[in-house]
Amino acid sequence: MRGLYFDGKLQYREDIPMPKMEKDESLIKILYAGICNTDKEILKGYKKFTGILGHEFVGIVEDSTDKNLIGKRIVGEINIGCYQCEFCKEGLYNHCYDRKVLGMIGKDGVFADYITLPNNNIHIVPEGVSNLEAVFAEPLSAALEITEMFHIKPKHRVAIIGDGKLGQLIAQVLSLTACDLTIIGKHLQKLNLVKDKGKVALIDELKINKYFDVVVDCTGNEQGLIVAGEIVKPKGTIILKSTYNSNTVLNPTNWVVNEVNILGSRCGPMDAALRIMERKLFSADGLIDEICSLKDYEKAFDRKAGKVIFDLKMD
Amino acid sequence: MRGLYFDGKLQYREDIPMPKMEKDESLIKILYAGICNTDKEILKGYKKFTGILGHEFVGIVEDSTDKNLIGKRIVGEINIGCYQCEFCKEGLYNHCYDRKVLGMIGKDGVFADYITLPNNNIHIVPEGVSNLEAVFAEPLSAALEITEMFHIKPKHRVAIIGDGKLGQLIAQVLSLTACDLTIIGKHLQKLNLVKDKGKVALIDELKINKYFDVVVDCTGNEQGLIVAGEIVKPKGTIILKSTYNSNTVLNPTNWVVNEVNILGSRCGPMDAALRIMERKLFSADGLIDEICSLKDYEKAFDRKAGKVIFDLKMD
Ligand SMILES: [Zn+2]
Ligand SMILES: [Zn+2]
Repeated sequence: MRGLYFDGKLQYREDIPMPKMEKDESLIKILYAGICNTDKEILKGYKKFTGILGHEFVGIVEDSTDKNLIGKRIVGEINIGCYQCEFCKEGLYNHCYDRKVLGMIGKDGVFADYITLPNNNIHIVPEGVSNLEAVFAEPLSAALEITEMFHIKPKHRVAIIGDGKLGQLIAQVLSLTACDLTIIGKHLQKLNLVKDKGKVALIDELKINKYFDVVVDCTGNEQGLIVAGEIVKPKGTIILKSTYNSNTVLNPTNWVVNEVNILGSRCGPMDAALRIMERKLFSADGLIDEICSLKDYEKAFDRKAGKVIFDLKMD
Repeated sequence: MRGLYFDGKLQYREDIPMPKMEKDESLIKILYAGICNTDKEILKGYKKFTGILGHEFVGIVEDSTDKNLIGKRIVGEINIGCYQCEFCKEGLYNHCYDRKVLGMIGKDGVFADYITLPNNNIHIVPEGVSNLEAVFAEPLSAALEITEMFHIKPKHRVAIIGDGKLGQLIAQVLSLTACDLTIIGKHLQKLNLVKDKGKVALIDELKINKYFDVVVDCTGNEQGLIVAGEIVKPKGTIILKSTYNSNTVLNPTNWVVNEVNILGSRCGPMDAALRIMERKLFSADGLIDEICSLKDYEKAFDRKAGKVIFDLKMD
């Protein structure tokens, strides 16, 4: 089958063997797959992964040990727990000591014609949800992990730092809480896409100090947390969404003095993501910059390409 | 009057003018005053403070605009709010935008014969509490801010990193929660002082990974947060108590991946500190290394001196 294989260098291959379905797994034919910022970080060495990249997808179950799944249009959770460790026993598969992660740790990903995935990880896509919406189920779940972890109140002043795709998904989710929302970014053009979700502000023109109850950093770089520390109120909460392959210089003493609460936040509830899609509370408008074939991977992984979706039906 | 004055260099002076009592204030004669790690950080440039150092004390109200306070033995909260700003209006005087802090920001401290303090900051010391216990009211409040901010459960596995004086006070407070407590430090001798509060472990012999529900960093240096990130469970909580005059290199991506909760924690409820003193749940045994005169300030501020209390009755 075709696939994008990474072993220090990203390669398009057509000779990749089909994955083998194991106990309690399904074989899934990929329809669409999205490139995420984490994939670009993996190319820079994050997770030290070797294998087929990619974890955002929508697909069709081609074969399964659960006959009810065969033929269904599905999305899938990316963390695969060991079902043995302390965390798995508590149901925290996302935090399993020995977890595999689709396209990241020990499990080939979705930039390929087929994948296998445990049946437990699979969610059936509701009828009214399109394929190009469903391919956002994984990042939209990550956005919903914010409201899953922390109570955002209608009266809260909330800032999102980062106007990239994740920032835009988070803006969609947080706008639903009725909070007083400001989206802070570097690009007027991107901010324009979310100006119906709240106020928008350019980071370089920001003159705000200790103002927000909640600040979400989804810049994807180390500046986000630094700015967040300046604009969050004392006793306020910073929600960290950025992952990047580097250390950074910080001043934790300010967090102590201002008694700031910092919450790391990663993968979230995929069933909830499908629910807000089904309720038409999510829109993929403006979120996709290009749809292309796996073969066009070099152009697709270019930083300037924005959000690219691979269409596996294309040659 | 006598006092320890800092203007880039610490000096003992006998020619300091008496402070003047203002509206809603009391004039307090200092009995005992404790040196805290923060004082040592101020000598290194933290807070860029000029004036009389010191914020841990017990004293007698010599004069007051509140006649009921005169003659009373008291301790005092160190944050002085403006009573005007958004935070003061919410009762968060500790986080006032324009706050003064005793011996730290805009307000002369307690390493002197006399201070003035707003009556609102004053707490009367209960009868059964000794002066050498009461002088710990401020740092013990800071320890109680942990249980004020975060629900530590009897079943939680909790680690304290840091076997200094603050670590020992925190060990006393957290042992009261019945939690499964481990105190991690560098010095067997100091760890021996708290071995009746929980398990003890030398940091260099630590072979624990992702084990604790809650980790308190009170090392006073940048290593504490790094170790905390290694030993805290996914979805666990790190409580930051260390303040220091430097930046540090950290990896926030690990906090995101493990969805760690980091809580900065500073000053706490002084009335609560006096309550546990009155209930004999606090002991100053082993917490004081030396009692000396203001004049001996050079020896007293030596890193190796441990916890030093100034006795203002001494010449
Ligand atoms: Zn597991
Ligand atoms: Zn104020």
